[in-house]
Amino acid sequence: MSETYEPKSKHIPQATIKRLSTYLQVLKNLDRDKVEVVSSNPLAEACGVQGSQVRKDLAYFGEFGIRGVGYQVKSLMQSITSSLGIDHEWPMLLIGVGNLGRAMINHVSRHASAFSIKAIFDCDPFKIGDSVYGYEVLSPSEIPQCVEKMHIDIGIITSRPERAQTACDHLVHAGITAILNFAPVRLKVPDSVRVEYVDFFRNLYSLVFNLSQGGKS
Amino acid sequence: MSETYEPKSKHIPQATIKRLSTYLQVLKNLDRDKVEVVSSNPLAEACGVQGSQVRKDLAYFGEFGIRGVGYQVKSLMQSITSSLGIDHEWPMLLIGVGNLGRAMINHVSRHASAFSIKAIFDCDPFKIGDSVYGYEVLSPSEIPQCVEKMHIDIGIITSRPERAQTACDHLVHAGITAILNFAPVRLKVPDSVRVEYVDFFRNLYSLVFNLSQGGKS
Repeated sequence: MSETYEPKSKHIPQATIKRLSTYLQVLKNLDRDKVEVVSSNPLAEACGVQGSQVRKDLAYFGEFGIRGVGYQVKSLMQSITSSLGIDHEWPMLLIGVGNLGRAMINHVSRHASAFSIKAIFDCDPFKIGDSVYGYEVLSPSEIPQCVEKMHIDIGIITSRPERAQTACDHLVHAGITAILNFAPVRLKVPDSVRVEYVDFFRNLYSLVFNLSQGGKS
Repeated sequence: MSETYEPKSKHIPQATIKRLSTYLQVLKNLDRDKVEVVSSNPLAEACGVQGSQVRKDLAYFGEFGIRGVGYQVKSLMQSITSSLGIDHEWPMLLIGVGNLGRAMINHVSRHASAFSIKAIFDCDPFKIGDSVYGYEVLSPSEIPQCVEKMHIDIGIITSRPERAQTACDHLVHAGITAILNFAPVRLKVPDSVRVEYVDFFRNLYSLVFNLSQGGKS
């Protein structure tokens, strides 16, 4: 009973892509607990979305689930993983080795098999040459050679906000077209470069809006 | 020419609420640069969304903008701030004082005037009693008294994934109903508790999906 889930369409909406991360997290836990089949409703509940949303999102991965039975956990995981392109390693670099940078180096190495930080950089001359989790902190002037040599695809910016645009310019200059930015500023980039912003305040605003609506004085 | 922007409806969609964080960031920069009026298109461009999206989102804040002129920066900022409920301080606590916890303490104190971390906790007995950025690391057993005494509304979880559910249980037990979770696990909470998940991998997946679609081998 091993089905393959070929993605029906490459035009998967961004919102669906972002939810896949949650589905994958839950599927991995189910797989670890030796669960072989899961139906959309418990999957939805574990992910905090509606069952109809799960069914709609997973429909982008083509034929799936057996009516009244559910999705095959392992096969669905594999399909999502290969559709996302995370069935192979993505080499990354990180710029900005403060607390957040260190936390990210640690977090990525612990939890992200598909992502690997290959080199770390800082604009602060006093940090260059330091050793952090076994990496040597390099000068941003070395980014272009590093990108070329290590086939870096993604740059992570964990600099202070006032240094983030400079960090970004270094990455763009070196040919990086995918940036994950943690600094609380909007970055100016050419159209060919995609920036994803990690903004904790979005989530905090959402929480407090909810608390305010809930009648908190 | 000072208009007030009263929110038209309290039923503002979550997606809009989350985009407000970006609008606020851009509006603050404009205000700092002494820009008084901005029209929807440049605002949209700076925020990385469509002009029509900005107009739709801001319409939730009632009458606005003068046709052909634009939005008044200061007034719009104030309206968003008060609608979100971030015109006063929200006391928070944090549990999990590793790198990510430290980074968050720092980040919140630098960039979030409406949010204030009042106390920090860790489950590791070796960390309890340590001083971190002027806070004493406390034992989770002290959470209930702390929540009551300091009127804490929000709990931030920056624990390791294997400790996150225990951290969450401590918060729920103490009556916290709004949780920001950084640990890469889904948490089990009663219906009365709202959890927002900060998941960097969502953004990474979105970047690599895009790179894969762009013809990367």
